[in-house]
Amino acid sequence: MKINGVSYRTIWRTDDPRAVEVIDQTALPHALRTRVLTDVDQARTAIADMIVRGAPLIGATGAYGMALAAQADASDMALEFAARQLAQARPTAINLRWAVERAKAAILAAAPADRVQVAWAEADAIAEEDVAACAAIGRHGLALIEQAAAGRERVNILTHCNAGWLATVDWGTALSPVYAAHDAGIAVHVWVDETRPRGQGAALTAWELAGHGVPHTVIADNAGGHLMQHGQVDLCIVGSDRVAANGDVCNKIGTYLKALAAHDNGVPFYAALPFSTIDWSVARGSDIPIEERGAREVTHQTGVDEDGVLHTVRLTPEASPAANPAFDLTPARLVSAIITERGVCEASVQGLRALYPEAMGAP
Amino acid sequence: MKINGVSYRTIWRTDDPRAVEVIDQTALPHALRTRVLTDVDQARTAIADMIVRGAPLIGATGAYGMALAAQADASDMALEFAARQLAQARPTAINLRWAVERAKAAILAAAPADRVQVAWAEADAIAEEDVAACAAIGRHGLALIEQAAAGRERVNILTHCNAGWLATVDWGTALSPVYAAHDAGIAVHVWVDETRPRGQGAALTAWELAGHGVPHTVIADNAGGHLMQHGQVDLCIVGSDRVAANGDVCNKIGTYLKALAAHDNGVPFYAALPFSTIDWSVARGSDIPIEERGAREVTHQTGVDEDGVLHTVRLTPEASPAANPAFDLTPARLVSAIITERGVCEASVQGLRALYPEAMGAP
Repeated sequence: MKINGVSYRTIWRTDDPRAVEVIDQTALPHALRTRVLTDVDQARTAIADMIVRGAPLIGATGAYGMALAAQADASDMALEFAARQLAQARPTAINLRWAVERAKAAILAAAPADRVQVAWAEADAIAEEDVAACAAIGRHGLALIEQAAAGRERVNILTHCNAGWLATVDWGTALSPVYAAHDAGIAVHVWVDETRPRGQGAALTAWELAGHGVPHTVIADNAGGHLMQHGQVDLCIVGSDRVAANGDVCNKIGTYLKALAAHDNGVPFYAALPFSTIDWSVARGSDIPIEERGAREVTHQTGVDEDGVLHTVRLTPEASPAANPAFDLTPARLVSAIITERGVCEASVQGLRALYPEAMGAP
Repeated sequence: MKINGVSYRTIWRTDDPRAVEVIDQTALPHALRTRVLTDVDQARTAIADMIVRGAPLIGATGAYGMALAAQADASDMALEFAARQLAQARPTAINLRWAVERAKAAILAAAPADRVQVAWAEADAIAEEDVAACAAIGRHGLALIEQAAAGRERVNILTHCNAGWLATVDWGTALSPVYAAHDAGIAVHVWVDETRPRGQGAALTAWELAGHGVPHTVIADNAGGHLMQHGQVDLCIVGSDRVAANGDVCNKIGTYLKALAAHDNGVPFYAALPFSTIDWSVARGSDIPIEERGAREVTHQTGVDEDGVLHTVRLTPEASPAANPAFDLTPARLVSAIITERGVCEASVQGLRALYPEAMGAP
């Protein structure tokens, strides 16, 4: 996607063939900064500290992390260690483990002399496949937005967290259909949940929609139910960090509350994700580990003052502790459909298997 | 309630008999400041700018505002004008209109020479009745917490916004039963929704629970559903800004989402409020006007840095607009019971009328 007319991805190879560069998402929306990652530890830190975030993007970063690891030491032991370090950087999104394992398997299968080259090629392939999958999600999701647009002046779409191009290598998952609809001339408007505590909606989704010229309005996470009660939301689209084999959707904390409200008000609720987000080894969502993050994300907020100076401020009394579960589970019964690069399916074992018959061996 | 061992109410008469003093709730939790209100316009501004907030407290402030008005000009015309100005300061909470109308009627019924004295006496009566009603809500709600405590080591209570003593003259509505339970030796723990955008949970509920020594944990508004899915919430108690005759509960934006999650997980969901919050003239909640507040409450946050210096920071891109509906409606079907100063009743026409038979003439 473009930033001020210049095409960007969230992660790319640099002129130095032994490094990758990423957009530093912790600096957005107030500054556009990039970081060069030159070793596996920097890749791991970028994932853990959420310099890069979003399930598909941390997958791609994990794969490039394996290439950086191979470059330093392509021995089996070093690669196994690197894979474990990377996969543990964040626990919930399955794309990370999937990409790291895929990259590791490809590298280990290669002759020692070829391993570095294979590692980079595999990471490039994972990144390119993500771009293609997200573009396809956009085409399939567009049909759902076209349906919702019929007879309406404007389609109001609510999204939670950031599942736009910043969460992937390019295009996005939940927002890919929105960009496709906007580019097709459909009048779309996005209700952007700010997505406390980290504010990925307020900081990232709003920023990328503004950059592409898509009309949008930021709201407190509390507001979506009220808007649905008043007919101001025509559909919801969210991304996912891991989908269980039965169609349960694990996504950013608060997604479940919006799915409940959508169900209570007859508003379609879609999850958009590539195949790498589906964990066939997990029968139901309750088996997915939920990351607990630091309390400071709840008690403190960072932003800019009127002079553009960054400050981190405390919102709570010093004596008050905070808890910060980072994801929740939306049961498949509340999900109208899942949008993947292969099409739109019911959120169920049957629905997912019909799209992915090669996964039949899974539980 | 006490602050550092000193007893406070949220509003009180000063040594100067022509003024009232209030805690400035916009400065909490970072500073304890008070403001002296000496004329009706200061009272109106204190309500509109949320120096005082909480349905019962803005009612009491409205009544004292009428006393301040009477002191300046006790003519019928001046009092009618003052009543309209005060009642319009905020549109959703019915307590404000109720208290202002009650005070006005008492003053207008008095002989001109007695009006100032009657005005102060009526405001004092409204404030004292609020204290008594909130104390009674605590006693009735305590029984529900005792039930929930049976067989549990600890009772986990989730609350949204601030309906503690800071929202009333003293004791609170939703938190009055919590204080009663804590004081009775029941191990209670409160999950405090931070309550974006204004953060009344993070700033006020956390502060007053910490002040009273009640164990509590601040959470993002997004987290409550996840906690309920995992059995970590035993009951929810919220306040209300207006209850319709059918038991629909209007309260701070986001309340509806928690009620949906409570219902989905079999968690009891209670609303606690005094009689003055019930609007018998409104048949159902959808007829209650919902205040739309400024976008800046969503796009900006205020807090203190590590040196204790206050900053207001922007969280969103400058190009992104925001919307800010301040209340939402929880349908009676999602409310397990309503707790008032007269007892606990079903959220229905029948339930409310059984507690308030004198309101039988209402629709």
